[in-house]
Amino acid sequence: MAGNSIGELFRVTTFGESHGVALGCIVDGVPPGIPLTEADLQHDLDRRRPGTSRYTTQRREPDSVRILSGVFEGVTTGTSIGLLIENTDQRSQDYGEIKDLFRPGHADYTYQQKYGLRDYRGGGRSSARETAMRVAAGAIAKKYLQQQFGIQIRGYLSQMGDISCELKDWDQVEQNPFFCPDVNRLEALDELMRELRKAGDSIGAKVTVVADAVPVGLGEPVFDRLDADLAHALMSINAVKGVEIGDGFAVVNKRGSENRDEITPEGFLSNHAGGILGGISSGQQIVANIALKPTSSITIPGRTINKQGEAVEMITRGRHDPCVGIRAVPIAEAMMAIVLMDHLMRNRAQCNDVKSDVPRW
Amino acid sequence: MAGNSIGELFRVTTFGESHGVALGCIVDGVPPGIPLTEADLQHDLDRRRPGTSRYTTQRREPDSVRILSGVFEGVTTGTSIGLLIENTDQRSQDYGEIKDLFRPGHADYTYQQKYGLRDYRGGGRSSARETAMRVAAGAIAKKYLQQQFGIQIRGYLSQMGDISCELKDWDQVEQNPFFCPDVNRLEALDELMRELRKAGDSIGAKVTVVADAVPVGLGEPVFDRLDADLAHALMSINAVKGVEIGDGFAVVNKRGSENRDEITPEGFLSNHAGGILGGISSGQQIVANIALKPTSSITIPGRTINKQGEAVEMITRGRHDPCVGIRAVPIAEAMMAIVLMDHLMRNRAQCNDVKSDVPRW
Amino acid sequence: MAGNSIGELFRVTTFGESHGVALGCIVDGVPPGIPLTEADLQHDLDRRRPGTSRYTTQRREPDSVRILSGVFEGVTTGTSIGLLIENTDQRSQDYGEIKDLFRPGHADYTYQQKYGLRDYRGGGRSSARETAMRVAAGAIAKKYLQQQFGIQIRGYLSQMGDISCELKDWDQVEQNPFFCPDVNRLEALDELMRELRKAGDSIGAKVTVVADAVPVGLGEPVFDRLDADLAHALMSINAVKGVEIGDGFAVVNKRGSENRDEITPEGFLSNHAGGILGGISSGQQIVANIALKPTSSITIPGRTINKQGEAVEMITRGRHDPCVGIRAVPIAEAMMAIVLMDHLMRNRAQCNDVKSDVPRW
Amino acid sequence: MAGNSIGELFRVTTFGESHGVALGCIVDGVPPGIPLTEADLQHDLDRRRPGTSRYTTQRREPDSVRILSGVFEGVTTGTSIGLLIENTDQRSQDYGEIKDLFRPGHADYTYQQKYGLRDYRGGGRSSARETAMRVAAGAIAKKYLQQQFGIQIRGYLSQMGDISCELKDWDQVEQNPFFCPDVNRLEALDELMRELRKAGDSIGAKVTVVADAVPVGLGEPVFDRLDADLAHALMSINAVKGVEIGDGFAVVNKRGSENRDEITPEGFLSNHAGGILGGISSGQQIVANIALKPTSSITIPGRTINKQGEAVEMITRGRHDPCVGIRAVPIAEAMMAIVLMDHLMRNRAQCNDVKSDVPRW
Repeated sequence: MAGNSIGELFRVTTFGESHGVALGCIVDGVPPGIPLTEADLQHDLDRRRPGTSRYTTQRREPDSVRILSGVFEGVTTGTSIGLLIENTDQRSQDYGEIKDLFRPGHADYTYQQKYGLRDYRGGGRSSARETAMRVAAGAIAKKYLQQQFGIQIRGYLSQMGDISCELKDWDQVEQNPFFCPDVNRLEALDELMRELRKAGDSIGAKVTVVADAVPVGLGEPVFDRLDADLAHALMSINAVKGVEIGDGFAVVNKRGSENRDEITPEGFLSNHAGGILGGISSGQQIVANIALKPTSSITIPGRTINKQGEAVEMITRGRHDPCVGIRAVPIAEAMMAIVLMDHLMRNRAQCNDVKSDVPRW
Repeated sequence: MAGNSIGELFRVTTFGESHGVALGCIVDGVPPGIPLTEADLQHDLDRRRPGTSRYTTQRREPDSVRILSGVFEGVTTGTSIGLLIENTDQRSQDYGEIKDLFRPGHADYTYQQKYGLRDYRGGGRSSARETAMRVAAGAIAKKYLQQQFGIQIRGYLSQMGDISCELKDWDQVEQNPFFCPDVNRLEALDELMRELRKAGDSIGAKVTVVADAVPVGLGEPVFDRLDADLAHALMSINAVKGVEIGDGFAVVNKRGSENRDEITPEGFLSNHAGGILGGISSGQQIVANIALKPTSSITIPGRTINKQGEAVEMITRGRHDPCVGIRAVPIAEAMMAIVLMDHLMRNRAQCNDVKSDVPRW
Repeated sequence: MAGNSIGELFRVTTFGESHGVALGCIVDGVPPGIPLTEADLQHDLDRRRPGTSRYTTQRREPDSVRILSGVFEGVTTGTSIGLLIENTDQRSQDYGEIKDLFRPGHADYTYQQKYGLRDYRGGGRSSARETAMRVAAGAIAKKYLQQQFGIQIRGYLSQMGDISCELKDWDQVEQNPFFCPDVNRLEALDELMRELRKAGDSIGAKVTVVADAVPVGLGEPVFDRLDADLAHALMSINAVKGVEIGDGFAVVNKRGSENRDEITPEGFLSNHAGGILGGISSGQQIVANIALKPTSSITIPGRTINKQGEAVEMITRGRHDPCVGIRAVPIAEAMMAIVLMDHLMRNRAQCNDVKSDVPRW
Repeated sequence: MAGNSIGELFRVTTFGESHGVALGCIVDGVPPGIPLTEADLQHDLDRRRPGTSRYTTQRREPDSVRILSGVFEGVTTGTSIGLLIENTDQRSQDYGEIKDLFRPGHADYTYQQKYGLRDYRGGGRSSARETAMRVAAGAIAKKYLQQQFGIQIRGYLSQMGDISCELKDWDQVEQNPFFCPDVNRLEALDELMRELRKAGDSIGAKVTVVADAVPVGLGEPVFDRLDADLAHALMSINAVKGVEIGDGFAVVNKRGSENRDEITPEGFLSNHAGGILGGISSGQQIVANIALKPTSSITIPGRTINKQGEAVEMITRGRHDPCVGIRAVPIAEAMMAIVLMDHLMRNRAQCNDVKSDVPRW
């Protein structure tokens, strides 16, 4: 309950600091008999990895994950899976100067006050580097969901600053470094990034994640609704400040007659609800948006205080993404996969014997 | 883990259907020695109660809560507190006609498919009536937080349809049936409600909840961040489709230089973060917004299917709010109180001995 | 996590004090579609009920349980089930004199020190009266396990004082007030009870619980082993001081060659292990023993202190069983049922697709 | 909830197979600011380690533990601590022959049936090798409890076969390879071991663990009692078949007048209860006994079946302890430490503000 775990039946527990010895996690509850290799995890880790394009931080870490347990002769055994990524690029000297300062917009101040001390190297535990293990764990869930149920979970950059990116082509998403689904926005995104880099500034982003082929019935009434658990999982990603399911905040000025998704013998006529009704998946596409704040690690000087409470001005040096939202795409996919996997198992535990003649599409 | 509980150390578990015998909950983990009476809970229950104004459903239920255990001689004993509200206004006949239909925009379809059957009377477990117990449980947390730490949790209607309501006056909030903090918007709200009632339609809303005087340090890194747990708790309220912390989705087109909250020896210069940094409370005001969809219970005919999969047209009769967002104000306060209470206890468990010389404001 | 819940997927949370308004519990995770009435629960409640024979306390409480939710038209809906028993026989005056004393062997002292105050009426929350809700909840599990899997859970008094009772006849167990399976021991038990009553003293007991037809595969490796969870559940019963699985403490002076249960194509040759190997059910009969201490509520004067720390001599008046172990039989059955139900659901969640050609018996 | 975790607030999650790449665990919830080095963990690991005497298995594994996170500049940071032990002595060839057999008395059969497959090398996850991580995690708890509260947790071998070992001298315990507290029994134990080795057989054992200086008030009423959680933790150790608190099964033929622990202004007059009343620590010494079965890994041939269900006779070759109970001493201490640590934190969360004038000793 100390906060480093997520999921009930498919349970992921992580450890590791940005500049510590290693990152790791334990994935508990994986069904037995699933083929699994390190390569299955490496693909998404590479998508998240820094240093893969000139748009993301130039820290170069191979992020090679090792499976330490729970897989025997290439197949999961049903026991807990230990995963490990050794930290290889630990330039601690980059961060020495922030030892006694609290970077504005960062967790430095709150960690210091909560714990009375902090690992200041690269943000320690509060660094987004921690999300590597989420991606690795999520890849296991993704594989199971895809293989056993044909569930596909995909994300894309839907907005950066004022540039909104419509979902025009899923294939395009993996072909550009922005995870942008509209080839016509690439130039504008590229220009914005260059401008930000010159200005030493950063920008926010919106990311959309969708899941196709999710069966009806996932999610538990009242508190552990599927949407509530998705909100938890997505809001737990570094820099996320908002979560929407389906139409999200657009519902505020909608009428009931516009917003309800009518049903016909052929299926639902719309999907304003984002695939979730009463906290339970409806069989439609699950759709979620997240808002990611612009990173506060910028080279424009900012005011802060040091540990003694004195005013200081600081700039954040080091290697940072001007838009952390970009790399959030595989992370958001991973979080959605973990939540769906967990609820699939929870639903199976309780409703395994349920039969229904009512149509599902 | 079947979903009817929230919180780890301050744990609320609820039961009850809209038209069943009674609603109830168990509040576990309440510290001993806290004065507590039924009147402490009744105040917020009355704020949530239907039938209190002409703007909300005319179901009249006294919603009288009884404390069945855990309080002795007017003081909490530290053992689990059982709460009960008997259902007195159960006009089942109102709902008989929807027995075999799936109201669009409701949980009817998903419950039927998940469980193979459902209590169709008034939505059964999926009814917002369930939130009465959240409000009762939240009132215990609110009282403790207020009394022991001076933490104050308050909400208001910040938007209905196109009418946005600025926070002009906290006192005003409790003096009108909309929980609207701006007296100048009351007329417009009133007019909109009348128009909707005439049209048999409904409207969405945005509600804002804030907590003052929250100490720095609440929230656990990584998954059980304070913002993630707030997102979970708030998204679990019926009809909520979006959650924002601080500036929320407005960060998408903000620059890092605008968005970071600078720090001076006198305190933070702004609060874009909504009082949470790295998932941990910063000592600033905690701010969250939620988007509530327009209820689908309207009298404009809509298409749906029956259990046999045949197309039918239906209207939802009965007594329904044209804007369910209004009554969500005390519910959202309750959910924030439960989350803060839980994290206060979690923080105390682990960080009880932490001392810090760093300034807090 | 405040301790009033047990089970993960089949989760029981209780409230209520010995002399409070009511006892209640919430049973969460019950599969939908199971026929359930109050009569299903009442049978075991009656077996546990005080006042049913001259051998148990003469408090007369009908212990009528009401189902408040989660059942619709006679069938479980899959939502949380609220159960309630009103306390009708609350003679508080009986207990007023112990308000400022700590009865030796009771929880008075530890509750006072933990919470700073206590409900002294009849032991408050620490009273065995709380176990009524365990029995009610367990009856739901028992019914499901019996109906869906043919699993039968039964207990008996295996020893009282020096009188050991062999399992000679299951039918006999329900035909005498001792739950004794050997008709030849009834006279000796009766004599012992009369002697104790005359002496104002009490006696310990051993109770055995067994489960038949449990499928192979229940239990999770490492910490949540089936035997570990049974030990937790059984040790949580009031007055229990020891738990054994299978041969229990008799293994201490056994050799490996005697103790291992050999396997043949027709099945296991013995069951020293009590049906659990490596924490997982083997398909054999599950066998557990518990040791129950003699109640400390006796009329022989004993030394203790009052709240001021002064020495006092006291006797415990009131209506008490000379052997609380007797009534523990249905409670132990209930706890075993809850654990098996929970693990059945956990196993289904993870290992639902497992097929095996290896023989099972 | 897949079973590889223990504790709520002080939470230990483990992974690793006997002959896999590595064993590891994550310890979550450790308070910040505690000095901690690998040497602190290594001491107990060495006490548990095989190959340290001729009485235990001759597998030689250095069991060197590495701290991968959660400690910065020699002090805990409050974030999750990752621990790792690489497996260096993996002679898989030893175990190839049992690939298709189910060793009687082992978890081979139940793992195969539960998961449909198993890592047969040395028992895989079911091997007692897994307990190394319990010992490492427990050492963190032990250190905290000792340093902050002066709580001391110690165990000893109290019986092996028919040889019972009285607690004569705590110092003696660490000076002989049996953890025997009575120097006069060493010869008999030595002789028994030699006899068993010659016979290719094994023997059961009883281990006693005690905790001194535990404050009054730890343990939660009803289900998460301190004794119930100890029973869970201790029963989860490989080969344990029984758990007693205080007098344990000896209470069965005790009278209430003998068994209750009377109280005087100077303290309790006896400790039959083993330091726990109503599930809550009384401030007295906590005492628990466990029964460990004789290992089934013996060289006396035994009957079993293979995966095809055919009868086979087998002997278990390899390097095995004739009495696995010996090495259980540090494991039992670790489990008690984990439980006490967890309950100390739980109690602090809820009852932090409780003051009491009632004497404690």
